[in-house]
Amino acid sequence: MTINDIAARAGVSISAVSFALNGRKGVSDQTRARVLQVADEMGWAPSSAARSLAEAKTETFGLVLARDPHNLGVESFYMRFFAGLELEMSIRGYGLLLQVVPSVEAELAKLAKWRNSRSVDGIILVDLHVEDPRVALATQPGALPTVVVGDPSLAGGLTSVWTDDAESMRSAVRYLADLGHRRIARVAGLAALAHTSIRDAAFADETRALGIHGELVRTDYTPQQGAECTRAALTGAEPPTALIYDNDVMAMAGLTVAHELGLDVPGDLSMIAWDDSVLCEHTLPSLTALSHDVVAFGSHVARRLFAVVDGAEPGAFLDSTPSLRVRGSTGPLRG
Amino acid sequence: MTINDIAARAGVSISAVSFALNGRKGVSDQTRARVLQVADEMGWAPSSAARSLAEAKTETFGLVLARDPHNLGVESFYMRFFAGLELEMSIRGYGLLLQVVPSVEAELAKLAKWRNSRSVDGIILVDLHVEDPRVALATQPGALPTVVVGDPSLAGGLTSVWTDDAESMRSAVRYLADLGHRRIARVAGLAALAHTSIRDAAFADETRALGIHGELVRTDYTPQQGAECTRAALTGAEPPTALIYDNDVMAMAGLTVAHELGLDVPGDLSMIAWDDSVLCEHTLPSLTALSHDVVAFGSHVARRLFAVVDGAEPGAFLDSTPSLRVRGSTGPLRG
Repeated sequence: MTINDIAARAGVSISAVSFALNGRKGVSDQTRARVLQVADEMGWAPSSAARSLAEAKTETFGLVLARDPHNLGVESFYMRFFAGLELEMSIRGYGLLLQVVPSVEAELAKLAKWRNSRSVDGIILVDLHVEDPRVALATQPGALPTVVVGDPSLAGGLTSVWTDDAESMRSAVRYLADLGHRRIARVAGLAALAHTSIRDAAFADETRALGIHGELVRTDYTPQQGAECTRAALTGAEPPTALIYDNDVMAMAGLTVAHELGLDVPGDLSMIAWDDSVLCEHTLPSLTALSHDVVAFGSHVARRLFAVVDGAEPGAFLDSTPSLRVRGSTGPLRG
Repeated sequence: MTINDIAARAGVSISAVSFALNGRKGVSDQTRARVLQVADEMGWAPSSAARSLAEAKTETFGLVLARDPHNLGVESFYMRFFAGLELEMSIRGYGLLLQVVPSVEAELAKLAKWRNSRSVDGIILVDLHVEDPRVALATQPGALPTVVVGDPSLAGGLTSVWTDDAESMRSAVRYLADLGHRRIARVAGLAALAHTSIRDAAFADETRALGIHGELVRTDYTPQQGAECTRAALTGAEPPTALIYDNDVMAMAGLTVAHELGLDVPGDLSMIAWDDSVLCEHTLPSLTALSHDVVAFGSHVARRLFAVVDGAEPGAFLDSTPSLRVRGSTGPLRG
């Protein structure tokens, strides 16, 4: 039995139970009396009370990031995402417990430790893989409240917050096709990540549907690989006339390669970045990008996790769909 | 009395005391007996034992960042710094409790809360101001173990880990002067930050000592302001022939402005970024930068905080000095 059970039986929030059992302010005398009565009826023991009270009181959400620490700062996505989480969490006085680990295995071990020690009140799962073992862990008995950041199909019935990456990718491909491009390359991120697969599939489907050539190249998100892949594609036998990159820094590095090769952007070549960032506004030409308010996305995720902690039923919540912000790097082919 | 006192008296680590009092594995029977005996001699009471045990067991260090969340992801510095912290902390199973707050006042409130609730085992103070109220808080009785990331002169006698920014700045100015530049502009970061003042002073001193013109412009670290300041400086009456930027993304945006104005870099204009990042390698030309291993810096800070938690005497620890990595964006003036 946990204080979740008492909260459910008493029809009040977990916070209210915590306040009532702990003799703290923040709950009416009436609610306090009701909670104590229900706790008594349910045979609530002080030891388990202390334990569950601790559960409800870390005022911390946990997030583990399995990424190479040396590449971690390159993309601004996660820092903006964290900032959005914190905007919402700070309203309730919550902090983010962040762990950077080298592998998904290490992440699993950390998540299991948090579950056993109840070190955090809830978990945010990011960088989802297909058949992700972390989702399996989060659906076991005794799991901490969890929100999956990713497609509902990956969430194992847990609450998820997601963006419709397939629709965004299709819109980008259609936009380039409408400009007259018939050979498009996708410079994709890490293959193991589920959202990469979703974008891959949408890219393949849409280019096929439009009867144009779609080429896929694989990277680790670093500008180094963004530059190398761009150079390889543009110096190949049948180079693409448009490139869609899976982040902003690869697009920036790709643009530099295009300049080095003497290509005019967008006269010879169009380029799209995903996600948009302030970097995209400060290249020459500025980069057309799939734009998403990542700070707001983070806040949305935090709100859903608070709801889960408070006992909300699981659900799949669609965040705003990344939409094309057209700048200088895309256009019709010259001549 | 805390378990630190018991650890000191028994001549063992705080962890050993924690393990021994808590009946956990990880300590020899001999040490356990010694700790229990010392605790008994010192009149160790269960209530204070419980409290101090909790103190030693959060396995968490706390860091508060008072920055605009929407600008937070722009620079890669903090994400790399966090990654470095985590590399070291993960060895001991520690996590980073991160709070992003809108102001130093909010940061102070959070730090005071952590101190009172002993929510973390130690604190990392960053973005130091002159006469920083957080340093005052961290030197009060009952303060948590703290490491200041910044110049020892700001640390109020607390342990500090610092880089010699004055020496780095002087070396950059001398390098540009040796190339023949006589008008140099410094595109500086937030004025309230102490390391900005240190760099400002070194820039003013070194340009004066060399008898060349030094101009200071102020920004908020965003590429927007980097671009605006560059444009204003280069279209002024007596434009500089070299610019030193306080981060990578402002230098990148400044380079774009130089191209827009039809200037050749480095033929017409030299540019230096601080800190170096992978972005600097993927501009055209690539950006000369003051380079510092920020991941290693983070790990260094974490090691010092573990030492403070373990009872080390305060000290000032100099990290490696950011050194010039010459790339394509600097050179002698054309003609």
